Amino acid sequence: MINAVGRDIPEEILKITGKEVFHGNNYYDGYEYKKDGPITKCVMNNSDSKLVKSIHEALVKCEIKDGMTPGFHHHFREGDYIVNMVMEEIHKMGIKDITICASSLGKAHDPIVPYIEDGTITNIQSSGVRGKIGEAISNGKLKGLAIMCSHGGRVRAIETGETRIDIAFIGAPTCDDYGNCRGIGGKSDCGVLSYAMVDGDYADKVVAITDCLVPFPNFPAHISMTKVDYVVEVDAIGDPKKIATGAAKPTTDQRKLMMAEYCTQFVVNTPYFKDGFSYQTGVGGASIASTISLSKIMKERNIRMRFGVGGLTKPMCDLLINNQADCMLDTQDFDLDAVESLKDLRHFRISAGEYADPFNKGAVVNKLDFVILAALEVDINFNCNVVVSSDGIITGAQGGHPDTAAGAKCAIVIAPLLQGRIPAICTEVTTVTTPGESVDVVITDYGIAINPGRQDLIEAMKDVDLPFKTIEELRDIAYSIVGEPKKVQFEDRVVGIIESRDGTIMDVVRKIKKFEFS
Amino acid sequence: MINAVGRDIPEEILKITGKEVFHGNNYYDGYEYKKDGPITKCVMNNSDSKLVKSIHEALVKCEIKDGMTPGFHHHFREGDYIVNMVMEEIHKMGIKDITICASSLGKAHDPIVPYIEDGTITNIQSSGVRGKIGEAISNGKLKGLAIMCSHGGRVRAIETGETRIDIAFIGAPTCDDYGNCRGIGGKSDCGVLSYAMVDGDYADKVVAITDCLVPFPNFPAHISMTKVDYVVEVDAIGDPKKIATGAAKPTTDQRKLMMAEYCTQFVVNTPYFKDGFSYQTGVGGASIASTISLSKIMKERNIRMRFGVGGLTKPMCDLLINNQADCMLDTQDFDLDAVESLKDLRHFRISAGEYADPFNKGAVVNKLDFVILAALEVDINFNCNVVVSSDGIITGAQGGHPDTAAGAKCAIVIAPLLQGRIPAICTEVTTVTTPGESVDVVITDYGIAINPGRQDLIEAMKDVDLPFKTIEELRDIAYSIVGEPKKVQFEDRVVGIIESRDGTIMDVVRKIKKFEFS
Repeated sequence: MINAVGRDIPEEILKITGKEVFHGNNYYDGYEYKKDGPITKCVMNNSDSKLVKSIHEALVKCEIKDGMTPGFHHHFREGDYIVNMVMEEIHKMGIKDITICASSLGKAHDPIVPYIEDGTITNIQSSGVRGKIGEAISNGKLKGLAIMCSHGGRVRAIETGETRIDIAFIGAPTCDDYGNCRGIGGKSDCGVLSYAMVDGDYADKVVAITDCLVPFPNFPAHISMTKVDYVVEVDAIGDPKKIATGAAKPTTDQRKLMMAEYCTQFVVNTPYFKDGFSYQTGVGGASIASTISLSKIMKERNIRMRFGVGGLTKPMCDLLINNQADCMLDTQDFDLDAVESLKDLRHFRISAGEYADPFNKGAVVNKLDFVILAALEVDINFNCNVVVSSDGIITGAQGGHPDTAAGAKCAIVIAPLLQGRIPAICTEVTTVTTPGESVDVVITDYGIAINPGRQDLIEAMKDVDLPFKTIEELRDIAYSIVGEPKKVQFEDRVVGIIESRDGTIMDVVRKIKKFEFS
Repeated sequence: MINAVGRDIPEEILKITGKEVFHGNNYYDGYEYKKDGPITKCVMNNSDSKLVKSIHEALVKCEIKDGMTPGFHHHFREGDYIVNMVMEEIHKMGIKDITICASSLGKAHDPIVPYIEDGTITNIQSSGVRGKIGEAISNGKLKGLAIMCSHGGRVRAIETGETRIDIAFIGAPTCDDYGNCRGIGGKSDCGVLSYAMVDGDYADKVVAITDCLVPFPNFPAHISMTKVDYVVEVDAIGDPKKIATGAAKPTTDQRKLMMAEYCTQFVVNTPYFKDGFSYQTGVGGASIASTISLSKIMKERNIRMRFGVGGLTKPMCDLLINNQADCMLDTQDFDLDAVESLKDLRHFRISAGEYADPFNKGAVVNKLDFVILAALEVDINFNCNVVVSSDGIITGAQGGHPDTAAGAKCAIVIAPLLQGRIPAICTEVTTVTTPGESVDVVITDYGIAINPGRQDLIEAMKDVDLPFKTIEELRDIAYSIVGEPKKVQFEDRVVGIIESRDGTIMDVVRKIKKFEFS
């Protein structure tokens, strides 16, 4: 069945998953449903200890068995040890047919590929996958399906009961013996536990794994003891160097600086750029540069940001230090400066649900004026692809891309026209991950295209001196330089689904095929 | 059927309520159940406003109808305007058969008595009732039943789905236009919103009512926008003078000071009094005096409190100021000093669920070493009554009494032997609200009785110079002074239930009967 972004979703996949095709952004707006709840074992006595000696013991106590779904969070990013430690133990115990429900998976998790190959892991739900797991999935090694969801979409799936997490594993930088987890302190400081909060709320069993056990009460808890069954102390939950890095040096790449300047000029000429505006940006070089250049104009014009949102980095947190923003709302910390900034009382932790969940009564993304995003590919319908590389391999994550793009009044995608010999602006993206209706502006180093659906923005820019072009013109320039690339060749078998934030199917990902010349 | 505290619970009541009789404190320990969830209406678009013009409009939008259950919190205590405003509007709309589910009701709510009499309100669930509502219930004016539950028990009832709140009304000292509520700031500052948090989590519709609308985002939110459907601004949500009072002057009543001194001497001679102990106390004169006298010994012996819990007042918060305690865990603020103390980063807000819920994976009460409580009556089985006065009228509230008594390692009840001509220590309490198995020590001005179930405490006190007596001896002294009072006379009709924290029936309250001499 053809969906609202023109993708043909196989009937068989609709049948297997019980899902609908994507019908457009606000198809589920106003939808009513009953939230799911976890199976909870009451602790009324005052003598039980939650401490267990090992992950093995926790798994035994949680009655791990074939077919279960463990939950994981990705706040330790490329420094995460939790997924591998838990999966190694599950594998040792001979458990099969596991569905991993992770907020994201990356290169740190390459060691679990053998467990995909041997049927220990048969399904994956994740914002995305990078590294060897992505290759394994694209090569058809996963028996079941990889469902790629946005950060908000994962919360939705869990809240509706579509995904039921049997056992959540919370990597906790600090934890007390009764399970109060905090994202800060200890030796594996990740700042926040935003993505894990929904696991705490909805998983039947919750296991906190820490390398820094602290006295009760470890307050204010980011995940409460009232949701935690067991606490395991281990030597290390992550590699601090890869959890939060030092601040990225501002880019000196002229192309990125130019796109950043275009972006800033665009932002300041919209009607949304006024005192009290709100703003989110990613961690790419151009995004960071645009935050820096925007802050200069804010200072010149005496315009103050009400709140910034993220995935935070130093340049965003600097807006607090320089008193140019009232507050920051934080779901993830990318560098040590952002972690440090959490000491500032204007820097607030928010859950992934508060951030981006489309199925609650209103998330922060709905209140965004601007979001600055990147993309691997953008097509002439403004559809974006942030998950599948142009060679067809799963290599990225949806993250908050579709959530923020849908919510923000002005969603700007920055992409260099060419990535090496690959055009980023094309006729049709390899895989649709964010629908064109969410994307208002595309900024490239060769010009800027405004979505024709946003005549108000086109009107606002009519006297602005920026290199505006149509999206087709940008595509044509790209193709004129590097030629129109041959389409990636796939086999029929569907290996993954790009799930829209509302749970419908945006696109499918098929098994990669060795390129054959026609 | 006779329950574990010897009370005969009528079969008819068991049938109507579907409840079991009380089987003892840990009967439900380890019980597994699936948590309920609210019916949630998704807000995916970025243009909806949650602001409505009046409580009337909110009620219309929430589709109020006969038989519904609104939820209320009691953080504004005797200064609360919310219950009366909402019920007045519901009454005007001609709605009938309402079940009020309040965390507590007091004299501030005397104006709703006519709505009980005319059938607008037919059932009440509350920690307790004071004032004219209590009289109305005891006189049989409520058509249905008054279910009196503990603070933890209310959370349990809502979590299990036994109580379903159709519309929760959150009185919010500050709120933004998207529903982020904070208990602090504005003109009706109550400090915390702990009792309302479960309403936010489980009510199908949530209406925030505020008299101080602030810019978005009102963070850190105590009740999140993700749970709030509508926001109403009104002139005043409460009377600040009656919400948080000035600190009570330390008592000069010699009898109370003596009991406080007994209490402190008892506490310091238990094995639990050591560095890192935890402690909760109430707001009575003797309780406050015992906190003050305890702090002196803590200083002398260089013993530090790890955490205090409450219902907080100045003397508890002074332990933070004087650096004698690591932190305070706060569910309610009784005076302005406690509200002010929330600025201290060691003073943490906790939800009623975190505080006392018996049906989560472990509440703070389970970690208490000491709790110092009061009681209207204590009987020779150590059963306490904190709800029904000795003349048979409902006049108090369970509050956290049964929760903390069950959780704490050492639960101490302070009660003057005589309240005027009424013995507080008696053969059989009028109504059992906290079971004797939870109560370890009773301290009176005529002596101290240790529960024979606590041979360890009896052993610990064997060389301590305090006026120890058996509970029967204390009762006998009381009766020897004022005589054994005649039993209160009740009619057969059950008007209320004392619900145990686990949802079973501890006792029933019957319609009061005009006293007849035999």
